[in-house]
Amino acid sequence: MSLILIAIGGNAILHPEKGNPQEQQEKIDGTCKEIARIIRGGVDVVLTHGNGPQIGNILAMQEECGLVHPQPLDICGAQTQGMLGYLLQRSLLNMFREIGIKKQVTTIITQVIVDGSCESFQNPTKPIGLYYQEERAKTMMNAGVKMIHDRKGYRRIVPSPMPFNIVEEDIIKKLISEGVLVITAGGGGIPVIERNGVLEGIEAVVDKDLTGSLLANKIGAEIFLILTDVENAALNYRKTNQVDLREITVHEAELYIKEGHFGKGSMEPKMLAAVRFIRSGGKSAIISSLDKAIDALAGKAGTRIIA
Amino acid sequence: MSLILIAIGGNAILHPEKGNPQEQQEKIDGTCKEIARIIRGGVDVVLTHGNGPQIGNILAMQEECGLVHPQPLDICGAQTQGMLGYLLQRSLLNMFREIGIKKQVTTIITQVIVDGSCESFQNPTKPIGLYYQEERAKTMMNAGVKMIHDRKGYRRIVPSPMPFNIVEEDIIKKLISEGVLVITAGGGGIPVIERNGVLEGIEAVVDKDLTGSLLANKIGAEIFLILTDVENAALNYRKTNQVDLREITVHEAELYIKEGHFGKGSMEPKMLAAVRFIRSGGKSAIISSLDKAIDALAGKAGTRIIA
Repeated sequence: MSLILIAIGGNAILHPEKGNPQEQQEKIDGTCKEIARIIRGGVDVVLTHGNGPQIGNILAMQEECGLVHPQPLDICGAQTQGMLGYLLQRSLLNMFREIGIKKQVTTIITQVIVDGSCESFQNPTKPIGLYYQEERAKTMMNAGVKMIHDRKGYRRIVPSPMPFNIVEEDIIKKLISEGVLVITAGGGGIPVIERNGVLEGIEAVVDKDLTGSLLANKIGAEIFLILTDVENAALNYRKTNQVDLREITVHEAELYIKEGHFGKGSMEPKMLAAVRFIRSGGKSAIISSLDKAIDALAGKAGTRIIA
Repeated sequence: MSLILIAIGGNAILHPEKGNPQEQQEKIDGTCKEIARIIRGGVDVVLTHGNGPQIGNILAMQEECGLVHPQPLDICGAQTQGMLGYLLQRSLLNMFREIGIKKQVTTIITQVIVDGSCESFQNPTKPIGLYYQEERAKTMMNAGVKMIHDRKGYRRIVPSPMPFNIVEEDIIKKLISEGVLVITAGGGGIPVIERNGVLEGIEAVVDKDLTGSLLANKIGAEIFLILTDVENAALNYRKTNQVDLREITVHEAELYIKEGHFGKGSMEPKMLAAVRFIRSGGKSAIISSLDKAIDALAGKAGTRIIA
């Protein structure tokens, strides 16, 4: 049976700054219903997910509430893995029961090894969490928090280093081979560095699609499926001469990235992750939306990147 | 090789209301070093842990910070499983490397099925989280939060139903049989109920030692080792006629519980969990402290409850 790694966004679970637990549950159930339908189609799935809105909420609570010691980013990330893993695994089990799939589901708390000397630790670029107004932002910056300013306000920025190893790789493979649906490397994985053989947590957030591509290679996934808000990638996106991309080679993808066709922080990192997967020996990567996922796997929607 | 289920308290990781991330790391490393020494002694270990201080901190942040939607207790519990599982698994891996043990470690996000019609949902009794002063407590109670008052102030109380099934049992057993050290059912497991075959999260906290005893039975552990703050259980605790208990039968344990020898909310639930383990077919349960754990396993410390 072919193995697919599916990466879903943290927004597939909860929109930042809104969404009560009830709305959150409905959103997760919708996502898990589609994933169950994909599996019923006769493939094996490993699931990874983003955590942007969730880790943003945890940071916001820590910053606003002086009562308890704030936890560093690696620990916040681990919290979101537990939370989102639980919500996804329970919902998936329920969907499987509903449509008669006999499959076990588990969440593996997953650490990814990053390079501690990576450039991104000197110059963090990844925006995270809530937007703040000027006065509050200045207080935070004076306290050492690095922030950027855009049209919506000030936002914290953190390092986003490249992942290059997954600590729990062997366990994940073992469970896949037993037919278990594994939810893993949530939020891009918990970033750790290895110093003299000792694993240490580090203040960073790893791009979930980059970790997804690494994971897809490590587990030998045939397809790396990135689900996002749009049905496919496009050239001249949202311009009159927009061209939707159906099937492109990895070489074409690299060219289009270089030409700046894809949005920074939105489509570009997805395309980069797809390219990385193919360049490391993967067969095909697909970028599409949740509701078009089945069509995309059948070659009837989405953008497919091949060797 | 004999299999031991070890249950450690949330206080073995972080004292409530104090402890910065650095102190937290040192405490965890100390705990994991002892667990690694136990494993080097030639046994297999499954690890479970409490989450009292940690879930208390999350609740406190949610209550103090109006920015984001508060998450229900099952989701808060899942967050602590991710957070504490990560900290323990990283530290254990480091300790294993240090003393030359080749063993993989993973945290399994674990749901426990409880009875939704259980009495404890009508009359919650389990205190949780921070203490509040009268004024703040009254506001919270007016908003529907159930609280009790003791000499230290007001504290939230929540249902603590009996666990009777572990959703991820088969996956846990599979990993144990592969020689993986599994961290599971943290904080007593995430409480869910089963309604018409559908799993639903529920607002409760399950006693970690009760879930530990269930888990120890399910996985066929030879010994259920509960680690706490004291070296052993005692009759007439802290009185001039205190009698330390070394080895007692389950029948004696039940008698002493009935006579009220053990502190409510401290030693009593541990003794009840030990009794439940033996009454369900377990061989021996041991209650001792972390630093006496190896002596206790050798029969030289702690309180052992046998059939």
